[in-house]
Amino acid sequence: MSNRTAVDSEGSWFEPDHLTELRRRLPITYIDVVPVRTDIDGSVVEVGLLLRASGAGQIVRSIISGRVLVHETIREAICRHVEKDLGTMALPRIPVSPVPFTVAEYFPTPGVSPFHDPRQHAISLAYVVPVDGETAPQEDALELSWFEVDELLAESSPLEEMDGGRDLLVRRALAHVGAA
Amino acid sequence: MSNRTAVDSEGSWFEPDHLTELRRRLPITYIDVVPVRTDIDGSVVEVGLLLRASGAGQIVRSIISGRVLVHETIREAICRHVEKDLGTMALPRIPVSPVPFTVAEYFPTPGVSPFHDPRQHAISLAYVVPVDGETAPQEDALELSWFEVDELLAESSPLEEMDGGRDLLVRRALAHVGAA
Amino acid sequence: MSNRTAVDSEGSWFEPDHLTELRRRLPITYIDVVPVRTDIDGSVVEVGLLLRASGAGQIVRSIISGRVLVHETIREAICRHVEKDLGTMALPRIPVSPVPFTVAEYFPTPGVSPFHDPRQHAISLAYVVPVDGETAPQEDALELSWFEVDELLAESSPLEEMDGGRDLLVRRALAHVGAA
Amino acid sequence: MSNRTAVDSEGSWFEPDHLTELRRRLPITYIDVVPVRTDIDGSVVEVGLLLRASGAGQIVRSIISGRVLVHETIREAICRHVEKDLGTMALPRIPVSPVPFTVAEYFPTPGVSPFHDPRQHAISLAYVVPVDGETAPQEDALELSWFEVDELLAESSPLEEMDGGRDLLVRRALAHVGAA
Repeated sequence: MSNRTAVDSEGSWFEPDHLTELRRRLPITYIDVVPVRTDIDGSVVEVGLLLRASGAGQIVRSIISGRVLVHETIREAICRHVEKDLGTMALPRIPVSPVPFTVAEYFPTPGVSPFHDPRQHAISLAYVVPVDGETAPQEDALELSWFEVDELLAESSPLEEMDGGRDLLVRRALAHVGAA
Repeated sequence: MSNRTAVDSEGSWFEPDHLTELRRRLPITYIDVVPVRTDIDGSVVEVGLLLRASGAGQIVRSIISGRVLVHETIREAICRHVEKDLGTMALPRIPVSPVPFTVAEYFPTPGVSPFHDPRQHAISLAYVVPVDGETAPQEDALELSWFEVDELLAESSPLEEMDGGRDLLVRRALAHVGAA
Repeated sequence: MSNRTAVDSEGSWFEPDHLTELRRRLPITYIDVVPVRTDIDGSVVEVGLLLRASGAGQIVRSIISGRVLVHETIREAICRHVEKDLGTMALPRIPVSPVPFTVAEYFPTPGVSPFHDPRQHAISLAYVVPVDGETAPQEDALELSWFEVDELLAESSPLEEMDGGRDLLVRRALAHVGAA
Repeated sequence: MSNRTAVDSEGSWFEPDHLTELRRRLPITYIDVVPVRTDIDGSVVEVGLLLRASGAGQIVRSIISGRVLVHETIREAICRHVEKDLGTMALPRIPVSPVPFTVAEYFPTPGVSPFHDPRQHAISLAYVVPVDGETAPQEDALELSWFEVDELLAESSPLEEMDGGRDLLVRRALAHVGAA
């Protein structure tokens, strides 16, 4: 049985035990990407959420997320993870600035911050990435759905199906773009 | 003889005297747009500068700039001014966030801030806007040139042909996008 | 009877009719300030809300807000409005950067944006300002209360007593500082 | 002989060989802090630069820099490194927002980005931190000097005595705060 998860898949050149060991020693740098559809005037209309199995075996909504590899630029990491999750036809508009809209600090101990990852201490730079092309769920994702901003802000929102505090990331993204 | 300038052209429904009067009473809200060409990974490769007659009758390099009209959103103002200066085929990617990369405060008295506009106190929200389509100088502009980042950072840069501190705006834009 | 409101008080050198006239012609530049108390590590613990009479005669919660005057810098406007609303002993830490955390566009017509101001089209640069000193409600304010972040995020929050969409401004501020 | 450097000092619970090994496998999360003195209105007046021995044995100017430790928040890391370099009386105003003004990507191979660190691939979140108290160089630093913005922007600036592209970080900080 493998303990690889979708998010770790890029680390296949590590032995799983070795990555586990590193995760006890250092914070791991991540990127989180909130994919959006925009109007012609740049305002955000829809947010894309993936449906996938969490590490804990539950079905959860998620955004695009993954490690930055050694010797890889943040821009390359964003491109790689968007392509990995949305496919090669997604036509993402990678941000012109490296400044994230927020930094999410995931701790293995719940309650240290709003973000929780049982596997590791991850420091994640979060970006909003407009997507213009055709998208389709890849690999481990069961589904990719686009939700209107109003749906996300309503009661019983799909954001409630996210885990580890990632719903907060989407809410911060909506605040940053002026949509909420 | 008219005292209208290129930048004022959208205000033609004001009597020129009336606009002059308003400018003595209130700061005027502007947007400044630094148009850029980007790589597939979002990094800025070139910056577009217009060549036009300044209010003082000199030929200067400039970026896209103009007033926000009453009842107009900032997004609409950005779209309108980009189209006015680069044409209808420019395909600008209007930013997803309303947060500017800097705010330039232009004062009629030189030295109050790095930015100077003899006509008025203008408060300008500045944005970087990637442009994907075909561009051509419009109306009052004599020329539109795309300069590589290295050219802009070299000695005897075209930035020296800008007035009112607008070279600083371009430098801040390059700093914000991680290109300088 | 005067039609001056608290927010307009700095404009007393305008005839009220003249300001009304200007407001029909131009967007008015504002600043909005969310005053906060922070921990030693910079994290936001409390947000200060004023209780005052709205233009419509209702009692509402509000943040610090006001016009930027002609020839005034944004920094001066922030200092002036904080002092006007919190008193001279507030010891505000004015932000080092002129970049606002959001830009709120208030329109006289409801629904154009999430922000509404029946008097005018205002474009407001919004800042979070930590306050270290003693504060007391001034002039028109009935009360100044400090609310913990959890109180603001709970149901039946004091944010519901704000009008014109200003609750959204506080929510965006909390998102920006990583508190929500 | 030890191969520990000032910047690594917090990692003494790692065997040096082990840290070297980790650095070949993962990008290391850093924070960079540009310490500043501000005016009462928040505008930056001076920037503090340390004088210290570089890893290569040269005397260089530097800013505050160091790793984020596992299980440590970014706020804690900023506090710890400021105290480590400026002393316990510095009274830093830790930023209210976790959003850095830029992200510096240091690569061991020169030329991949403007930032270079021969020891490792480091991803550094950079913050401007106003300092109100008494400061003194600590530990490995030979000197701490405060430079006016004009000195930093002049020819033969102390910024030229920085290595690894860190001068660019200070320039981006000045651009962000509107001082250049």
